[in-house]
Amino acid sequence: MRYHRIPDETVRRLPIYLRGLLFSSEQGQQNISSRNLADFVGVNSWQIRKDFSYFGDFGTRGVGYNVEKLAKEIKKILKLDIVQKVALVGVGNLGSALLAYPGFVIYGFDITVAFDINPKKVGRKIKNVAIEDVSNLRTLKKRKIKLAIMAVPREAAQDTAGALVKAGVKGILNFSPCYIIVPKKVKVITIDIAMDLARLPYYMPAS
Amino acid sequence: MRYHRIPDETVRRLPIYLRGLLFSSEQGQQNISSRNLADFVGVNSWQIRKDFSYFGDFGTRGVGYNVEKLAKEIKKILKLDIVQKVALVGVGNLGSALLAYPGFVIYGFDITVAFDINPKKVGRKIKNVAIEDVSNLRTLKKRKIKLAIMAVPREAAQDTAGALVKAGVKGILNFSPCYIIVPKKVKVITIDIAMDLARLPYYMPAS
Repeated sequence: MRYHRIPDETVRRLPIYLRGLLFSSEQGQQNISSRNLADFVGVNSWQIRKDFSYFGDFGTRGVGYNVEKLAKEIKKILKLDIVQKVALVGVGNLGSALLAYPGFVIYGFDITVAFDINPKKVGRKIKNVAIEDVSNLRTLKKRKIKLAIMAVPREAAQDTAGALVKAGVKGILNFSPCYIIVPKKVKVITIDIAMDLARLPYYMPAS
Repeated sequence: MRYHRIPDETVRRLPIYLRGLLFSSEQGQQNISSRNLADFVGVNSWQIRKDFSYFGDFGTRGVGYNVEKLAKEIKKILKLDIVQKVALVGVGNLGSALLAYPGFVIYGFDITVAFDINPKKVGRKIKNVAIEDVSNLRTLKKRKIKLAIMAVPREAAQDTAGALVKAGVKGILNFSPCYIIVPKKVKVITIDIAMDLARLPYYMPAS
């Protein structure tokens, strides 16, 4: 309740701070100054101090912020203080790489199940995650899985998203290069790898 | 020259429009209205009309925009009207998936070479791309490769970026979950997959 007045812009930066704090903690750091955190994450230190002040953590002069306490606080705000179960849909090259991706664990994510349309893949396991037939998507509600990663071909993306929404999924990380239409209560974040690469040449000096 | 007054915000949206136009063209569409393009890419139609007016394309009333002509124009602005050679560094699970990723071709990217530190991988080929030892990074300047995709472990990211900059690379698509420090003339776009997933639970309704 005390968090409901944190501005959207601050919420958008919190995962960046959390990433920096988790890695600092991993390196055995107990305290960090806003200036050091700034260098580490690439956000201005005054912005960091302002953002943290929204949830009442002002640090200690000369000592800085307590890394673990602050990380815990941010995790709570971002609802990452509990294990979040995740389903992956589409076990192709990218999907397989995502199942093996080590980065999800630090935020407390647990990829519990994967789905594919290819009968040859169904029944197999990758990194201990069982691959089920895509028709099983509807069981997600019963399994209390509300997050999904979509790594399906573009042509299948909208339908897959529809099936996920029907199965009660509330958040989708989409790797298909397209805009997905979902009800307002569902949040989609799209990572379009090729499009992000396509943004780079514009900034390059002519040669 | 005639493009130098396009606002940054518009430039940021151009790849989104280009993606929509390329896929429309693929489907055989010759013209598209700003309203249809809006539905397709998820940007307001008035915004689209305003953005396109910066480079003098106002479409034709009742007919809309010529898909191919507009795509060509945007490609030119984004410097995607030529084949852009790309190097990939780090051929682990994610790097291998990126070598097989079909999405880069539509923007005219050509992943010409891959690098890895693991001698077992060096000399092999994935999807026709030869894997070379990472010490060969310095040859990039001679090979006129100015774009790189980094899929290396976080610990190696900053050093790899340094080596890329030294080799004349001007644009880096970074998949390591960290902030990379580079000279101002070099542009880095970071895709932090786990952090993007970590943004989702905040928006989910409590259950």
